[in-house]
Amino acid sequence: MTRTRIDTVMDTVRRQIASRTWVPGTRLPSVRAQARTLGCSVSTVVEAYERLAADNVITARPGAGFYVCGPAAPLALAELGPPVDREIDPLWVSRQSLEAGDGLLKPGCGWLPADWMYEDGMRRALRSVARADAAVLADYATPQGLPAMRQWLARRLGGLDIEAPPEQILLTESGTQAVDLIGRFLLEPGDTVLVDDPCYFNFHALLRAHRVQVVGVPYTPRGPDVAAFEAALQAHRPRLYLTNAGLHNPTGAALSSVTAHRLLQLAERAGLVIVEDDIFADFETQPAPRLAAFDGLARVISIGSFSKTVSASLRCGYIAARPDWIAGLTDLKIATSFGGGHLATAVLHSALTGSGYRRHLDSVRLRLAQAMAQTITRLRPLGIEPWTVPTAGLFLWCRLPGGHDAADVARACLRDGVVLAPGNAFSLTQGASAFLRFNVAQSADERLFESLRRALAR
Amino acid sequence: MTRTRIDTVMDTVRRQIASRTWVPGTRLPSVRAQARTLGCSVSTVVEAYERLAADNVITARPGAGFYVCGPAAPLALAELGPPVDREIDPLWVSRQSLEAGDGLLKPGCGWLPADWMYEDGMRRALRSVARADAAVLADYATPQGLPAMRQWLARRLGGLDIEAPPEQILLTESGTQAVDLIGRFLLEPGDTVLVDDPCYFNFHALLRAHRVQVVGVPYTPRGPDVAAFEAALQAHRPRLYLTNAGLHNPTGAALSSVTAHRLLQLAERAGLVIVEDDIFADFETQPAPRLAAFDGLARVISIGSFSKTVSASLRCGYIAARPDWIAGLTDLKIATSFGGGHLATAVLHSALTGSGYRRHLDSVRLRLAQAMAQTITRLRPLGIEPWTVPTAGLFLWCRLPGGHDAADVARACLRDGVVLAPGNAFSLTQGASAFLRFNVAQSADERLFESLRRALAR
Repeated sequence: MTRTRIDTVMDTVRRQIASRTWVPGTRLPSVRAQARTLGCSVSTVVEAYERLAADNVITARPGAGFYVCGPAAPLALAELGPPVDREIDPLWVSRQSLEAGDGLLKPGCGWLPADWMYEDGMRRALRSVARADAAVLADYATPQGLPAMRQWLARRLGGLDIEAPPEQILLTESGTQAVDLIGRFLLEPGDTVLVDDPCYFNFHALLRAHRVQVVGVPYTPRGPDVAAFEAALQAHRPRLYLTNAGLHNPTGAALSSVTAHRLLQLAERAGLVIVEDDIFADFETQPAPRLAAFDGLARVISIGSFSKTVSASLRCGYIAARPDWIAGLTDLKIATSFGGGHLATAVLHSALTGSGYRRHLDSVRLRLAQAMAQTITRLRPLGIEPWTVPTAGLFLWCRLPGGHDAADVARACLRDGVVLAPGNAFSLTQGASAFLRFNVAQSADERLFESLRRALAR
Repeated sequence: MTRTRIDTVMDTVRRQIASRTWVPGTRLPSVRAQARTLGCSVSTVVEAYERLAADNVITARPGAGFYVCGPAAPLALAELGPPVDREIDPLWVSRQSLEAGDGLLKPGCGWLPADWMYEDGMRRALRSVARADAAVLADYATPQGLPAMRQWLARRLGGLDIEAPPEQILLTESGTQAVDLIGRFLLEPGDTVLVDDPCYFNFHALLRAHRVQVVGVPYTPRGPDVAAFEAALQAHRPRLYLTNAGLHNPTGAALSSVTAHRLLQLAERAGLVIVEDDIFADFETQPAPRLAAFDGLARVISIGSFSKTVSASLRCGYIAARPDWIAGLTDLKIATSFGGGHLATAVLHSALTGSGYRRHLDSVRLRLAQAMAQTITRLRPLGIEPWTVPTAGLFLWCRLPGGHDAADVARACLRDGVVLAPGNAFSLTQGASAFLRFNVAQSADERLFESLRRALAR
């Protein structure tokens, strides 16, 4: 019985409690079951439980096992989940990027520069809504949200081969709120959720707030690794798989048809629900296959927003799902955020239906393709190579040369006023320490490459 | 051992499971403890547990007691909580009012008619923001939200004697989201929360989504009944008390200084956190005392929004709280809704800081006072009497004559195209069946009084 093994068991229990997977009053697994799960001896677990009890973290009830002590401290997202570098936790990139002042470069952030966005369209839409009926300016939205916007979305989803009538669409305050509502509707604390490894870092932070176990499946340039996906289904019996539709964040890769078909077969057999976040749809030049299209919104839920292509300042997302789920999600939306953003939806709808949006997208896609090529060309002399060359979008997932740690590089560059996105912020297994995600639309400034050169020369 | 008692125990267990107070895997209280809690015999509980086990609702683990079976069905808010009339559940008023078409009268809804709202100010604000910097139109907000808006709020709260520097203010998507974030931050499933009885109906729906026990404290014309409040603290050891600041919804009453002082003393002794929803602040002519002012934001959290006086179409709320709580709540906001409504906040700030808002409020307060007097005068001949005459605001909480049931009256009037708010939608104990809440700003149409007259003549 080594000191290290006891510590491991204690850390595991502490983490389950900190993440509120085990809430106060929960009975811990028996000593025998815990030893089996963690692959250690019974005596190691006994010793760990005793020490935790001495520390008032858990309490022994004679003859009935060990229970989590209560009440807990307020939920602290930053301290939850697997042990990650404290400075580079899943909230790190959000905090740095959202707080960044004007002088900073943000190649690590997940959005276009403001002057690449649909600025003219937004100005026109605001002026147009300034002349709208009083009800648009003053009243709550209907529970499911503006019918005209849902009709527009139904047509757009139809273009991706996803059949979703307006009645099967619920407008939300944002894409993030869409995932959050689905989690509250379908998940129990302690459920398991599959995500891609790597995946959008905020999925980790969001799922922690739901107190679920998160399991990563390695991502390949054609979608998740199907064999690993199947093994994860068998080992963990997950309730949900949360992924991107189309262009994947952070890699820029996309699902192939064969992967999509096999994933769905596995999901059907396992009773798995899939949430497909279609937030980057409008960057695609050729749409990748959608799981929601193959599945017909039976077990796949399609969500999205327009934060990446119209405006991130204006909040409006959507959920397309089975009718019975939409009914339950609508009740939950009213209970937890009431009326929804009527005005934001009206401005968005006006912007999307103006004649300029298609032209805006054509121009953005062209600029992104050029920026992608230039960023690759400028990173190459530094020995920074793309893991795959995306067909479109704003992300480039790159490997650093010579064993450099991306977190160290990110810290060094932050001192130069450059906010990077280190790989492990996206990786549950912390297996992406050699990677950085570049936003090609935010990577034009020579100071970025100078800062990287200095950081890599150390 | 009668059939009825066994059914009662079974219903209680089923409700705890449906509301997810007990999630799959939870150990049920022992037979003896349950018998004590429900005041029935041990053999009644044994029989109830056995029948629930036969129904696969719970499962017996020999020697270890009974456990909730899993996995559960998706969370269904409408089916949760205490048994209420299915048509008049806490979501009833929201659904009817939010869905109501143009032809309907809505004296039961909780907002001003669109043409009473700050329409001119909104049009001016939209035109002004249409000329703003690209960053305002396109970028995410900073994590805590627009500094200028938080500075404005700090001054406004200062006017109510609440000391809240901008660093202690977090902007949210709405007042409802403010309560929701606080619940996710401070509450555990199974915790107890006190509310007023009656209280804003959506507090019930919202708290159900948090899987907490809700206990009502009778409300008096000077605030909650202090003796009942003290008894509830002792009996239930609640974590939180959720109430209105200033004008109370649905009664229009307000807290007296002596009640505020005594409540705070009790809260301090019991370690209770108080959330004070200040959504009706701008309707007051003379501000009532605020718990947050007495307490200095130590254990009181002040929240609010501008949905009632500027626009409900534009979503923006706030939380003022202890600095460490604001830090944790900010992380949780980013994780669950990301950037926040930058554009909505900019429009709101522009509307509030324009010269017209004070004049708008003066005019609304005058119209409300006139409408209040008229509504009282027109209800009196029907035998409908106010429980208290509010000093300001839009609500009038009225008792029906002669044993009429408000739910029956609401159903009858709905057939005439009149959406009423029956008392039990606001009452946890279902003790308000003789009451209706009238929104005096939506009660000018003669058809309302005709419909009431017919309904009461039955």
